[in-house]
Amino acid sequence: MKEFWSSRIRNLIPYTPGEQPKDRKFIKLNTNENPYPPSPRALEAIRDNTNESLRLYSDPEGTALRAALAEVYGVKESQIFVGNGSDEVLAFAFQAFFGVGDTVAFPDITYSFYPVYAEMFGINCKIVPLNDDFTMPVEGLIGGNNGVVITNPNAPTGIELPQSQLRRVLEGNPDVAVIVDEAYVDFGGTSALPLLEEYPNLLVVQTMSKSRSLAGLRVGFAFGSENLIQAVNCVKNSINSYTLDRLAIAGGTAAVQDRAWFAESCAKVAATREVTVRRLQAMGFTVLPSKANFIFISHEKVPARTLFARLRQEGILVRYFDKPRIDNFLRVTIGTDADMDTFCTVMEKLVE
Amino acid sequence: MKEFWSSRIRNLIPYTPGEQPKDRKFIKLNTNENPYPPSPRALEAIRDNTNESLRLYSDPEGTALRAALAEVYGVKESQIFVGNGSDEVLAFAFQAFFGVGDTVAFPDITYSFYPVYAEMFGINCKIVPLNDDFTMPVEGLIGGNNGVVITNPNAPTGIELPQSQLRRVLEGNPDVAVIVDEAYVDFGGTSALPLLEEYPNLLVVQTMSKSRSLAGLRVGFAFGSENLIQAVNCVKNSINSYTLDRLAIAGGTAAVQDRAWFAESCAKVAATREVTVRRLQAMGFTVLPSKANFIFISHEKVPARTLFARLRQEGILVRYFDKPRIDNFLRVTIGTDADMDTFCTVMEKLVE
Repeated sequence: MKEFWSSRIRNLIPYTPGEQPKDRKFIKLNTNENPYPPSPRALEAIRDNTNESLRLYSDPEGTALRAALAEVYGVKESQIFVGNGSDEVLAFAFQAFFGVGDTVAFPDITYSFYPVYAEMFGINCKIVPLNDDFTMPVEGLIGGNNGVVITNPNAPTGIELPQSQLRRVLEGNPDVAVIVDEAYVDFGGTSALPLLEEYPNLLVVQTMSKSRSLAGLRVGFAFGSENLIQAVNCVKNSINSYTLDRLAIAGGTAAVQDRAWFAESCAKVAATREVTVRRLQAMGFTVLPSKANFIFISHEKVPARTLFARLRQEGILVRYFDKPRIDNFLRVTIGTDADMDTFCTVMEKLVE
Repeated sequence: MKEFWSSRIRNLIPYTPGEQPKDRKFIKLNTNENPYPPSPRALEAIRDNTNESLRLYSDPEGTALRAALAEVYGVKESQIFVGNGSDEVLAFAFQAFFGVGDTVAFPDITYSFYPVYAEMFGINCKIVPLNDDFTMPVEGLIGGNNGVVITNPNAPTGIELPQSQLRRVLEGNPDVAVIVDEAYVDFGGTSALPLLEEYPNLLVVQTMSKSRSLAGLRVGFAFGSENLIQAVNCVKNSINSYTLDRLAIAGGTAAVQDRAWFAESCAKVAATREVTVRRLQAMGFTVLPSKANFIFISHEKVPARTLFARLRQEGILVRYFDKPRIDNFLRVTIGTDADMDTFCTVMEKLVE
């Protein structure tokens, strides 16, 4: 009935996250979580902060976390924003850079939260179809917009936009913000971070949900010029002063400092991905070239929708998007070697 | 310079939270935190959940927390929204119920985040002056608006709006949402919760930051008709699917279940408040009648601004608002008996 609902949400269709099963034990390859545990140092830091101090507000600026990120990534603290997962960081960035009635450009196949943010915040979308091979339509993202958002590597395709082409997007949009969502960059991609000095319009957004195995702690961050970071802070401080709790700040800080754990976990996922890709190709799957912790696959004979349902019956959750161009693909998160062996064995049976 | 900043934030002045000192040890009576620790059961629940499961996303619906709230407050789970502190809940509610160009009514002296939300989300404000005795201007909040927001007990005055008058506001605004922000209700106020069944336009917002000593965990919640809760969820799910991390859900759930700890902590604060009020009145202070965990005070001879600065020198932080009508008042959070004894002893010296 929507009585009392504001005009801004009456026609809004929210984002639908992947299923989080509560009842049954699944092999969960549907929400791009990391199969390996978070750094033990992160868990220890959380335990150390689980005390009376929780009665006090958290540091609204997340200073300790920003200091750790500054140290590890080699940028100034004033060039770093921290927030409650990269979804929140992206929502703040949309509001910071795109006004009501502005137009933001992004491809047709990408993170499906972007059009939701746009609708939520009164922003128009310029949706540019990916090329036929699912690579980024670079020239289409230049001009005729008030900003651009790119996932790199892209989701759900996993395909990386080469840095030379990212430069083209940045240079072709010198007067507007270009948000590069690098949620999946740590599994073999190349970050745009070194380009910050050259491009004052570049905001790089990352998350601890995937590569640092902390989806359940809700920590995202962004790098940009001080000017862009100030804009994102302006939005945050006009909505919620304290988006990160004390435990997220403590755990996130320790996770960033544990570089060895991070590197090893990402390398294991990337290695498992390559083994999985080869097995799937041998079964007749097309696998888009992925630099992410997931793969996007399509079989020559068995429809994706069928495979999705059959996998679920077998206790394996993957993600299926019932959308044009990709309705014969499945997005499969890379799990442990054992998870992926089970997955491939089941798949061999299903496509036989 | 604000290059790249969107039109919606170019003139925005964000909310300024109270100081969170990092360097020096203060008696901290400036941000309405609870002086007593959170429930030991909450801390235990957090420790129990500090494990590998943090690699997985949290429950986007906060089901366990909503179930605990439903049990303790006697409402249906579908009438409860949970979020990252009541500031976030309020920000979502503003977007859920007030469209761009709509007008929201609230008094001139109240939580200073409301005009910031309004500016952020393109909402106009109808600001109604409090009565001369700082009570709520009930008739001024009726008509000529697309919604109302009231803090009850009000902040920073601490004065409660009697339920009969709250009914008048609800009945005078039958076609628009009325948000009642009850951040401070647990220290002796009367909640509007029993009115939910009668008024489909009522949203009651509460927080664990004050009465449950969990400001650093970031948990807020709202009660309303299923229709209103669906609207708030629509906003949340269009911004960030997972605003509460696993530890906040676990700790918040246990805190709600520990009713005895909660009742005892609130009662101690209320008792200390009454003792403090009598001592301050004996020194020549006007103390507005407070049902909150803070008091709003003004001295007959010494200006508030002077007292604020002198208290800081003495290692005591309170809150001073340099705004018309209240620029000779201080807002003082109720601490432990020892804190307030020190505070009163210093005050006796300062006003001598």
